[in-house]
Amino acid sequence: MTSCHAEILAIGTELLLGEVIDTNSAFLAGKLRDLGFFVYRKTVIGDNRARIEECIRQSLERCNILILTGGLGPTDDDMTREAIAAVVGETPYESDELLAAIRCMFARSNRTMAEMNRKQAWLIPSAIALKNPIGTACGWLVKNNGRTIIALPGPPHEMKKMWTEQVEPIMLSSGSVIHHKTFHTHGIGESSIAELLGDMTLHENPSIATYARNFGVDVRVAASASNRERAVQLNIPFENKVREILGDSIYGYNEETLSGVIGSILVQTGQTLGIVESLTGGLIADTITETPGADDYFCGCLVPYQKIIKTDFGIAGSIIERFGVVSKEFAKAMAERARVLFKSDWGLAATGVAGPDAVGEHKPGTAFIGISSESQTIVRKTDWPGELRQVKQRTANIALMYLYKALRGYPF
Amino acid sequence: MTSCHAEILAIGTELLLGEVIDTNSAFLAGKLRDLGFFVYRKTVIGDNRARIEECIRQSLERCNILILTGGLGPTDDDMTREAIAAVVGETPYESDELLAAIRCMFARSNRTMAEMNRKQAWLIPSAIALKNPIGTACGWLVKNNGRTIIALPGPPHEMKKMWTEQVEPIMLSSGSVIHHKTFHTHGIGESSIAELLGDMTLHENPSIATYARNFGVDVRVAASASNRERAVQLNIPFENKVREILGDSIYGYNEETLSGVIGSILVQTGQTLGIVESLTGGLIADTITETPGADDYFCGCLVPYQKIIKTDFGIAGSIIERFGVVSKEFAKAMAERARVLFKSDWGLAATGVAGPDAVGEHKPGTAFIGISSESQTIVRKTDWPGELRQVKQRTANIALMYLYKALRGYPF
Repeated sequence: MTSCHAEILAIGTELLLGEVIDTNSAFLAGKLRDLGFFVYRKTVIGDNRARIEECIRQSLERCNILILTGGLGPTDDDMTREAIAAVVGETPYESDELLAAIRCMFARSNRTMAEMNRKQAWLIPSAIALKNPIGTACGWLVKNNGRTIIALPGPPHEMKKMWTEQVEPIMLSSGSVIHHKTFHTHGIGESSIAELLGDMTLHENPSIATYARNFGVDVRVAASASNRERAVQLNIPFENKVREILGDSIYGYNEETLSGVIGSILVQTGQTLGIVESLTGGLIADTITETPGADDYFCGCLVPYQKIIKTDFGIAGSIIERFGVVSKEFAKAMAERARVLFKSDWGLAATGVAGPDAVGEHKPGTAFIGISSESQTIVRKTDWPGELRQVKQRTANIALMYLYKALRGYPF
Repeated sequence: MTSCHAEILAIGTELLLGEVIDTNSAFLAGKLRDLGFFVYRKTVIGDNRARIEECIRQSLERCNILILTGGLGPTDDDMTREAIAAVVGETPYESDELLAAIRCMFARSNRTMAEMNRKQAWLIPSAIALKNPIGTACGWLVKNNGRTIIALPGPPHEMKKMWTEQVEPIMLSSGSVIHHKTFHTHGIGESSIAELLGDMTLHENPSIATYARNFGVDVRVAASASNRERAVQLNIPFENKVREILGDSIYGYNEETLSGVIGSILVQTGQTLGIVESLTGGLIADTITETPGADDYFCGCLVPYQKIIKTDFGIAGSIIERFGVVSKEFAKAMAERARVLFKSDWGLAATGVAGPDAVGEHKPGTAFIGISSESQTIVRKTDWPGELRQVKQRTANIALMYLYKALRGYPF
């Protein structure tokens, strides 16, 4: 149904120069989706009045709700108000109430309002003012020919606050909602998942879609309905079917992260983790400590980067001499040493070649992951060439995935 | 001149759901600008063939060069190839050479190519293949009616590598060029820099602009001319003036990173670095090891995350008892211990509260940075509230900036 189509238009030349990344549009897209709108297009355009007008006109031909961000500042190149007024054919006037609010905003920080700021108190007859409690750029909500135009300021914290406190309550009073569940999977490729899901991916409501991620593939089941309860009910049989098909390949849901899931397992089992990582240079520990409360189960990490340091922490020098630091044997020694150094139940280790130079016969991307527990130590080799950052990131991802599997008792 | 107009079209439903932020477009916008193109519009569209086609057609009416990212995967909802073929009116065929390259990519990681991946070997007669050395999604460069369409894969590292190694050399062979020099500065605010630069920021060619960054403020001097030599000549007097005005506040140029500059200083002086970091959980070491060859000067890092572990590595227990782990005294002990543990010339330490909970009277964001050398140990406190990731990132940034200043002998 066409009443659910939304578009987002971000305005600002700085967004076209590559210096600033537009994060507003992603925030708004997520919010619109949760409210049941289908976002079909996001556009970024510079501070040029003719092009802004053209964009607004084109969008309004395709969608019912258009969200604009940016171009509401006080200077001559802020032209969102002028463009909207021209499209709907109305003339702006100065609102006494808005002007007083802006003067008040300046007074609070002991500044005097410049004459050019008067423009920020403009309204048009069909616009409702959206107040900005933390800035001088007021927003507009305009109803025109069955379509809604919402203009919000560009600074993300102002835009988000105004969206949450003023726009969302208005939007919630009408329309459909979307309920979704995202399954995070590991160890199975996107094309294999697509084959397993078969015709399910052709279903329309709920829709079932797959997305490749750093840690594996996500499967998203999303239903649209007139209210939340109904959307949840529509989703359930499909969620169950996905769970049945993918089984143990699912490691988490929605906002859960792999390091967070690992943390939950360690907390539940009362176990602890120690890490010795060289190739990844601290990235595995950094990822583990992204979860609040990680000090409940994460004891610590050693990054023995130079060869000479590796033996100082009790990792056998004879192994380095016989097998080298890029070896199965050294990864095993590191993982076992991690449990001793950090008095932990589990030891995780990563060694290998980050690049750009090879080490002996080993090319960049070659890594050995060691996982040690009281009962055994397992080492796996990975080999995935790439740039230094990629190699570090992939090795850290794989190491965490292996640790997850070991904690769950899954083969790997 | 219209031959300089570019547009960017990012394809992928995930970009419209608010889950993934489109960073590719910002990268491409910056690169296109440096090549002398004016980017007037960036659009994001979902995996819908009709809408992709419509978008391509509309863009080609406005611009001379259209860059597409995404939609080059193997699945049915990857439809960039089909859409381009339809717009230029050609029929795709399977390229033996590309197919062999894809099979080889799978073989290298011991996987078998799925049948659906054959689609990634498609070409059309007017397309030049852009090879993907680190993935299976090949790109296309299509010349059609005086316009150029370039299709690149969505994963940022693949897209960037292919842009830099294959697309840029082709683009550089025609049109006007931009030569720029970016100065990275530290310890001076954006408005102070603007005041110091004065009227220079109004100059048109070269243009002089400032941008706030994680590690400080960047100043960019950029000249446009018909050839590179001429652009370089235009830039020189302004670069010299910026250097004269900002002096020691400049820590690097263009692609240089702070961790890379720190590495260069350590290599030049034949010195080494050891790190003990708790709050930042490995992030400082991870940042230092982003520079290839860091094992020449980076000895290693200890992340003593649990309190009990901190004393195991010889950090005095009495200091923890008297002052706590979030203290000036503990940061000093950690930095000094780093030099002993890793036998390094310099010791860098970070302790503090990452959050979300406070530690005693210390709120999240409170951190102590310790820097130790043979002659002295300096500790500085920082206090910048935020979410866990922000606190870790900012503390790591400040720690590296302090280390840089200490290495240079600057006050901090």
